[in-house]
Amino acid sequence: MIETKPIDGKAFAANLRARIAEQVADLVRTRGVTPGLAVVLVGEDPASQVYVRNKAAQTLEAGMASFEHKLPADTAEADLLALVARLNADPAVNGILVQLPLPGHIDSTKVLAAIEPAKDVDGFHVVNAGRLAVGLDALVPCTPLGCVMLLKHHLGNLSGLKAVVVGRSNIVGKPAAQLLLKEDCTVTIAHSRTRDLPGECRQADILVAAVGRPEMVRGDWIKPGATVIDVGINRVPKEDGKTRLVGDVAYGEAQGIAGLITPVPGGVGPMTIACLLQNTLTATRRQNGL
Amino acid sequence: MIETKPIDGKAFAANLRARIAEQVADLVRTRGVTPGLAVVLVGEDPASQVYVRNKAAQTLEAGMASFEHKLPADTAEADLLALVARLNADPAVNGILVQLPLPGHIDSTKVLAAIEPAKDVDGFHVVNAGRLAVGLDALVPCTPLGCVMLLKHHLGNLSGLKAVVVGRSNIVGKPAAQLLLKEDCTVTIAHSRTRDLPGECRQADILVAAVGRPEMVRGDWIKPGATVIDVGINRVPKEDGKTRLVGDVAYGEAQGIAGLITPVPGGVGPMTIACLLQNTLTATRRQNGL
Repeated sequence: MIETKPIDGKAFAANLRARIAEQVADLVRTRGVTPGLAVVLVGEDPASQVYVRNKAAQTLEAGMASFEHKLPADTAEADLLALVARLNADPAVNGILVQLPLPGHIDSTKVLAAIEPAKDVDGFHVVNAGRLAVGLDALVPCTPLGCVMLLKHHLGNLSGLKAVVVGRSNIVGKPAAQLLLKEDCTVTIAHSRTRDLPGECRQADILVAAVGRPEMVRGDWIKPGATVIDVGINRVPKEDGKTRLVGDVAYGEAQGIAGLITPVPGGVGPMTIACLLQNTLTATRRQNGL
Repeated sequence: MIETKPIDGKAFAANLRARIAEQVADLVRTRGVTPGLAVVLVGEDPASQVYVRNKAAQTLEAGMASFEHKLPADTAEADLLALVARLNADPAVNGILVQLPLPGHIDSTKVLAAIEPAKDVDGFHVVNAGRLAVGLDALVPCTPLGCVMLLKHHLGNLSGLKAVVVGRSNIVGKPAAQLLLKEDCTVTIAHSRTRDLPGECRQADILVAAVGRPEMVRGDWIKPGATVIDVGINRVPKEDGKTRLVGDVAYGEAQGIAGLITPVPGGVGPMTIACLLQNTLTATRRQNGL
């Protein structure tokens, strides 16, 4: 029987934020540069409001400047694009994040394309996706960046390990595959059309689940001793009528099989904002030629 | 015993070029638009001279305009960049190709980045790599585009097939993986650090070898009935002191095991220029809003 250890993403993220805060303080002291992150929220989606509040709070805690732009739900696309243009030109703003989803009358692809790639701390701009794809310095989407940080911290060198990424979104699956390839993993990308998904997963030394389907990955899909990174955050009903959060992996079933596994919540989740701060710091450094 | 059939890339490419020529004729007749391809060659590398000559000849045969720019080996980077800027601005030029390798004193990354992405018919610009990565319309590198065309022609729908790409170059391996993922294959990218390369290859319904090592993929690495796409073109010595071309796959050993296989020469090779013409036609259409 394998002793399955949880990966404490909350503690790792807190530690990462503390290290970032030190580097920010150093940047302010030695260069007089304070990294600034602008977050744009259109409309009043409750979940988005919570995210934006948390991002702003953690930005300030890290010693960075936070600029919040809250626009009404009926904001015209042209006005949003004009705001993005102003933020692109503002030297106090080193990172720009437009909170998704945007209201239906606004073309998200167009808005994301309007962000200056050097300030695109979400890493969603095609220039950053392309730079990642061809192996140049890029701003990388936060969640997969957090996954790979956790993996490197717990496993050390990933070279030669077999990684299976389940899910092929632009936000998680595809960039995760690129990052793992850069770490010299053998990488398989599996998805809804994959014929033998359990069989593919069973080969994984590193299994990344990013499909958004509650507990889809079962215990017997996991190779004994594998490291499991569960990116899913799914809210499911409990018997008492309330709800609970579960990942894309059946966490209970993974016990005694996986070597390491990220719990939900408290695994990958806390890494996302920490990596947003990391990206903002990285963007600030590059913009200042450091 | 499986009867292994060769994939005749030469015939397929000739057919593709004929279809392109028809579409070009139609574009000239109905819209008064003649697609134009500019090829820039710096220096006198003999292999590059042959490629450029073949490209120009096939461009003309397809009814397109060909603009050849041959510069001396000691051309300054700034002068090459100025030429690229002129071609970017020239409405008669729909596609621009800078023949690689460039002389050592010129930064290839910088030159490729200077090409207008809409005219980047080699598909090497980060914007095109990014558009491919996130699933937008892109100009895709010619060799992997040709591989996937051959696969779709011979296998039909690729959805759910297991594809293993050996090699992770920006020119072949990585874009081939992206294209196969777009066709809903389950995709594994293997490379020099892969621990069990034969074992990975043996799982492949579609095996793409793009490593540049003569006959590295052995017969017993191939799953019976698999389709093998051999991108390698390696020149090796013969006993009589002359040389011959071989691929990355041991072609003789694959007989009786593979279902379909591209020979070397005559398989993938002829597809590259045909796909360059296809990209030039695609670029011309998009630039004219068609």
